[in-house]
Amino acid sequence: MIQAIKTLAIRGAPAIGIAATAAVYLAHLEFENQPDYTAKMTTAIDQIEASRPTAVNLFKATTKARETLKNNPSTEAFRKQVEDIMRYEYEACQRMAENGYHTIPKQITRFLTHCNTGALATYGSGTALGVIKEIAKTRQIEVFVDETRPLFQGARLTMWELMKSNINCTLITDNMAASIIKSEKIDAILTGADTIAKNFDTANKIGTLSLAIIAKHLSIPFYVVAPETTIDENVLTGDDIVIEQRDENEVCNENVPKGTKALNPSFDVTPANLITAIITDQRVIDLTDKD
Amino acid sequence: MIQAIKTLAIRGAPAIGIAATAAVYLAHLEFENQPDYTAKMTTAIDQIEASRPTAVNLFKATTKARETLKNNPSTEAFRKQVEDIMRYEYEACQRMAENGYHTIPKQITRFLTHCNTGALATYGSGTALGVIKEIAKTRQIEVFVDETRPLFQGARLTMWELMKSNINCTLITDNMAASIIKSEKIDAILTGADTIAKNFDTANKIGTLSLAIIAKHLSIPFYVVAPETTIDENVLTGDDIVIEQRDENEVCNENVPKGTKALNPSFDVTPANLITAIITDQRVIDLTDKD
Repeated sequence: MIQAIKTLAIRGAPAIGIAATAAVYLAHLEFENQPDYTAKMTTAIDQIEASRPTAVNLFKATTKARETLKNNPSTEAFRKQVEDIMRYEYEACQRMAENGYHTIPKQITRFLTHCNTGALATYGSGTALGVIKEIAKTRQIEVFVDETRPLFQGARLTMWELMKSNINCTLITDNMAASIIKSEKIDAILTGADTIAKNFDTANKIGTLSLAIIAKHLSIPFYVVAPETTIDENVLTGDDIVIEQRDENEVCNENVPKGTKALNPSFDVTPANLITAIITDQRVIDLTDKD
Repeated sequence: MIQAIKTLAIRGAPAIGIAATAAVYLAHLEFENQPDYTAKMTTAIDQIEASRPTAVNLFKATTKARETLKNNPSTEAFRKQVEDIMRYEYEACQRMAENGYHTIPKQITRFLTHCNTGALATYGSGTALGVIKEIAKTRQIEVFVDETRPLFQGARLTMWELMKSNINCTLITDNMAASIIKSEKIDAILTGADTIAKNFDTANKIGTLSLAIIAKHLSIPFYVVAPETTIDENVLTGDDIVIEQRDENEVCNENVPKGTKALNPSFDVTPANLITAIITDQRVIDLTDKD
């Protein structure tokens, strides 16, 4: 499970939270009749926590696991945590979809999205993509999808989900965004979030900051959709968010000259003043006055 | 030669101009002793002209070829045109490098560039990359290189040229630009141009518009380097520039679901008010007052 999180086989903040909780449960089943149960569980939880540095859902899951390990380390308690987080995330998707549907003006029908924020990243319909799918139930829409280098989550996952849902969708490379927003008259950008600071600065998949700057310059709204649990009150501003640096081999493909040096930050931080609104399962945070 | 231009084996505006002129010369050698010489040459020039829609250097080369075909269709005249354009482009690179060196303030040492604008795109040291190489002769610099999807010209060609020149260089994905400009304290962005309109709106490789918007938002200068011949006085503004749409299979790699629809504009248009200065072989056009 740790390998699956590290290699992004499991990805998307809510899915990572569920996977981490399930990993703790599996560790409990493995170690429960062994000597040094508590030490082994502590090591396991530490390893799970270290698998991805920028995922607040991961830390919330491991924090809860440590409490359970201390107070009530029973099979029933660990299993209940898995069931709880799955139900929570499923219902959160439904509420985000409804909040998004009511927040986004009816004349908005042409969307740009980044990375994958759908059923493949959550347990439910998704965050940003869940909102888009909810809107598609009642009006004709078109979705443009950033391929999302280096790992192509948009091209591989979001296109698959949208095609499966019979929603009009078109793939673009990340660097086309500004040009396509103008030529295709895109109305709004929707993305998810990995960590949201107390001041609403938002860490999300690399490329999100570029999109938010472009949206502001071209005067189209930029919405972030994420469960309330993504907001970390202990992180005061975006400057306090630790950005995961991943292996440069994800960027360096077979076309690159030998010895090429590359950077590969997994996320970037979008300042709150570039965000139109953050749509969570509990509220809609209007940020238009903060500019 | 036409295939080589169409498939981008030959690419970069100056290199395309040279290739087109050389293609006309080759056509002349093939047809000079055949019946219907003029008709065959006219067809050949039409085909050469149709190989790339956005390259002003191509149209200039074919326009000159038509004049020569009408007035003096000799082997000597067509060969001289090839020699002239090669000498012109070589000297133009030297003058652009010098003009760029004197225009860009001495404290600027950290660059971001896009696509390939070096020796592999021109006949000489290059346009934007020629300036960067000229600056590297007298001060320590670092260059960050957009991989430039979909065809990876930055990753394949620019990284190779910079590493060969022993200039510090780091590859990034296109969507990292805004984040890396902030984290790596990049001082300036330099790109080339494919067509510059009379009002200095500039068509260049897809992704350039996004970079120019980001540069403006993050308050760093955005320089365009191109030979004076790139400016087309018949194109009044960027709205009049025809953007080449290339095959969607360049965007759709093996990871994409079957049936995926994609857009693939080869260029975008950056409005003059997002450009700090255009550096040509003949002058430096300061655009900072146009904002």
